[in-house]
Amino acid sequence: MFKKILIANRGEIALRVIRTCREMGIKTVAVYSTADADSLHVRFADEAVCIGPPPSNLSYLKMSNIIAAAEITNADAIHPGYGFLSENAKFSKICEEHGIKFIGASAEMIEKMGDKATAKATMKAAGVPCVPGSDGILESFEQAKKVAKEIGYPVMMKATAGGGGKGMRAIWKEDELQKAWESARQEAAAAFGNDGMYMEKLIEEPRHIEIQVVGDQYGKACHLSERDCSIQRRHQKLTEETPSPFMTQELRDKMGEAAVKAAEYINYEGAGTIEFLVDKHRNFYFMEMNTRIQVEHPITEQVVDYDLIREQILVASGVPISGKNYYPQLHSIECRINAEDPYNDFRPSPGKITVLHAPGGHGVRLDTHVYAGYTIPPNYDSMIAKLITTAQTREEAINKMKRALDEFVIEGIKTTIPFHRQLMENPDYVAGNYTTKFMEDFKMEEIKE
Amino acid sequence: MFKKILIANRGEIALRVIRTCREMGIKTVAVYSTADADSLHVRFADEAVCIGPPPSNLSYLKMSNIIAAAEITNADAIHPGYGFLSENAKFSKICEEHGIKFIGASAEMIEKMGDKATAKATMKAAGVPCVPGSDGILESFEQAKKVAKEIGYPVMMKATAGGGGKGMRAIWKEDELQKAWESARQEAAAAFGNDGMYMEKLIEEPRHIEIQVVGDQYGKACHLSERDCSIQRRHQKLTEETPSPFMTQELRDKMGEAAVKAAEYINYEGAGTIEFLVDKHRNFYFMEMNTRIQVEHPITEQVVDYDLIREQILVASGVPISGKNYYPQLHSIECRINAEDPYNDFRPSPGKITVLHAPGGHGVRLDTHVYAGYTIPPNYDSMIAKLITTAQTREEAINKMKRALDEFVIEGIKTTIPFHRQLMENPDYVAGNYTTKFMEDFKMEEIKE
Repeated sequence: MFKKILIANRGEIALRVIRTCREMGIKTVAVYSTADADSLHVRFADEAVCIGPPPSNLSYLKMSNIIAAAEITNADAIHPGYGFLSENAKFSKICEEHGIKFIGASAEMIEKMGDKATAKATMKAAGVPCVPGSDGILESFEQAKKVAKEIGYPVMMKATAGGGGKGMRAIWKEDELQKAWESARQEAAAAFGNDGMYMEKLIEEPRHIEIQVVGDQYGKACHLSERDCSIQRRHQKLTEETPSPFMTQELRDKMGEAAVKAAEYINYEGAGTIEFLVDKHRNFYFMEMNTRIQVEHPITEQVVDYDLIREQILVASGVPISGKNYYPQLHSIECRINAEDPYNDFRPSPGKITVLHAPGGHGVRLDTHVYAGYTIPPNYDSMIAKLITTAQTREEAINKMKRALDEFVIEGIKTTIPFHRQLMENPDYVAGNYTTKFMEDFKMEEIKE
Repeated sequence: MFKKILIANRGEIALRVIRTCREMGIKTVAVYSTADADSLHVRFADEAVCIGPPPSNLSYLKMSNIIAAAEITNADAIHPGYGFLSENAKFSKICEEHGIKFIGASAEMIEKMGDKATAKATMKAAGVPCVPGSDGILESFEQAKKVAKEIGYPVMMKATAGGGGKGMRAIWKEDELQKAWESARQEAAAAFGNDGMYMEKLIEEPRHIEIQVVGDQYGKACHLSERDCSIQRRHQKLTEETPSPFMTQELRDKMGEAAVKAAEYINYEGAGTIEFLVDKHRNFYFMEMNTRIQVEHPITEQVVDYDLIREQILVASGVPISGKNYYPQLHSIECRINAEDPYNDFRPSPGKITVLHAPGGHGVRLDTHVYAGYTIPPNYDSMIAKLITTAQTREEAINKMKRALDEFVIEGIKTTIPFHRQLMENPDYVAGNYTTKFMEDFKMEEIKE
């Protein structure tokens, strides 16, 4: 087992990893930027090394500084958390070259799953359903037209180097195609320096449902069922739940089996998530694989009594998994509490937290790195806490979330707590009747409190 | 179902009940003494009524004020929490007379279980093992000698009106009996004005293990397995866990069966706890029944995914139980955090909390009514928080407790956090090798922090 793990991350996930390390008797090294000197992950780690100032490319993304910190402190493994270097093939390789275990996927695996076209081709080969579309990059407008006809409208055109909706177009009829083709390519070229386009069938009433998998070093993988992450705003998840209210046991088995098959096909090692789109007919299609821990992993932990960070560390150290799959025994919901003003288009609201009172009691879990007196730096993403409630039924978990949100006091900054309160009262949400389009129609009600 | 419940209590248990009521959509009424005006239970209830000043006999024990508060606010039920009026037969009866449902045992049941001799006789009749001893009060020294011979040394002599160890003697051989008989009677007469004595077999290496039961209005009861509460200081529990490290499935089944039989024999309604002494040979003996929720109920909730307060409310409203028993799926430990100085003989340390940082994350639950800026009044018991950790194994739960205790920051007062830290490192505790005598030998180590 590892003696000392360096956590190459910040915020709640750094603290999350430190907690499990402490529980396992493993020493920890925090790294931090000068903007994060007062963060709890720095306080709770056994050692802490400053790796530079913000922005991130001078600190949390600066591989040489992180490797140096690991060498100075004699860390034998690095946990990358999520974001930053967690899916960086080069960093995974550099760790390996320095004899430091990267607690995550190998460089080869990250490369395979990081490039969308390669990932899709690999999944197809593994027999995992993928959204019908072009085989890789479209060579010409004529080919685009041909493929669209084959798979049938509506279709989506996407930039191969894309992300964040850039270079992406929905096309409902053939006569819209030419204009979309041109404008998407221009946009992609400007944004990514790469105007390569591919095409997929547009999924109607899509839900974002992902399957958690864990693979060991011996080619074995298991799944831990699904998380429904359809409530998103501009591709940012706001709240997640498990089980999905749209799920059936039959679909869970099918998706779980596909996910395990995919993980075993690529000899996946560690915790990973296979994201699927599920259409209104309960067809599911591979979207992408995240070769790291997800923000929303706690809801899975809550319903299967499983510590995923612990499992990451165990499999990285060579412990084999049992191979059995895990099914939700309870219902769990996570609300991401962001330092943003939901009444003002979710504008970031960094600043000093003057008062903080955390909710507690039965079925309430809070993962946060902030505290009263802490100043949220403007340099990083705005998530400051994850509030998770767990109960025997979805209805109870929602009621528990409402009560926990009511108890949660954060003063000095704006937060998304009022948004979540309204969401938990929204009739469509309460009925479990939502897709990834939900937020397009969601309007905050006037401030009542 | 009830529309509005008045909580005739304060502190964490009042908040605990309010939380479940909110989750069930039931309105709440807090009552409070002038010393508790700033407590969270007052803030989080839908309504709050001041019922007088401290001490408790002018407020939390003042039945007329509480009934008046219930009538003014139109509450249709009263939850008494623990302590105060929770096991007061008169109060239960007065509630009933006023058409207010008392969420707890009936006056008859409380009377039956409140008197030690009656309780023991009832349990004997129900076939529950009781500590062998005299049938009620010993008439003479000769009878004492005869009974001691019958049940076998060592024996305990106890004052029938006793408590707090007064008028209590352990006798290991017959030639010690006469002196003990005389001195114990003198002590009892002086302390209680009553020198009545009874005798019981002395239980060697006793453990305090209790079984949680729930009974409904239709004569049906179930058990939710055990809690080990052997770590006590002057009969005050300090930490509890479930499962008991001393338990076997065979013993659990026997004790559970006895507890259900006892509850059904007396037609017990509501949540109750049957406390047993278990000797080193795993014989178990009825000690007493608490006809109310216990402080340590959360550890049971954690390992069986069951909300006991919710269950109390449901059965009080007439919902039948399923009748199945519940077995621990996980391991859970509770540490009672008291405002006391463990380095100074646990002397109470009321005062203002200047800084409070709550632990969080996977497997951590905190039940507390205090917050940064709150002043702990000197009038009530010193418990300010219950920290509960839950994991797949006892070892993991202990490690989680250590890390949660390390994260827990309370400044401005002394607390028992350092005691619990040392307890979690104690080799006997870690080995699960402890009895109710544990604290007699426990010494705090020097302050290290």
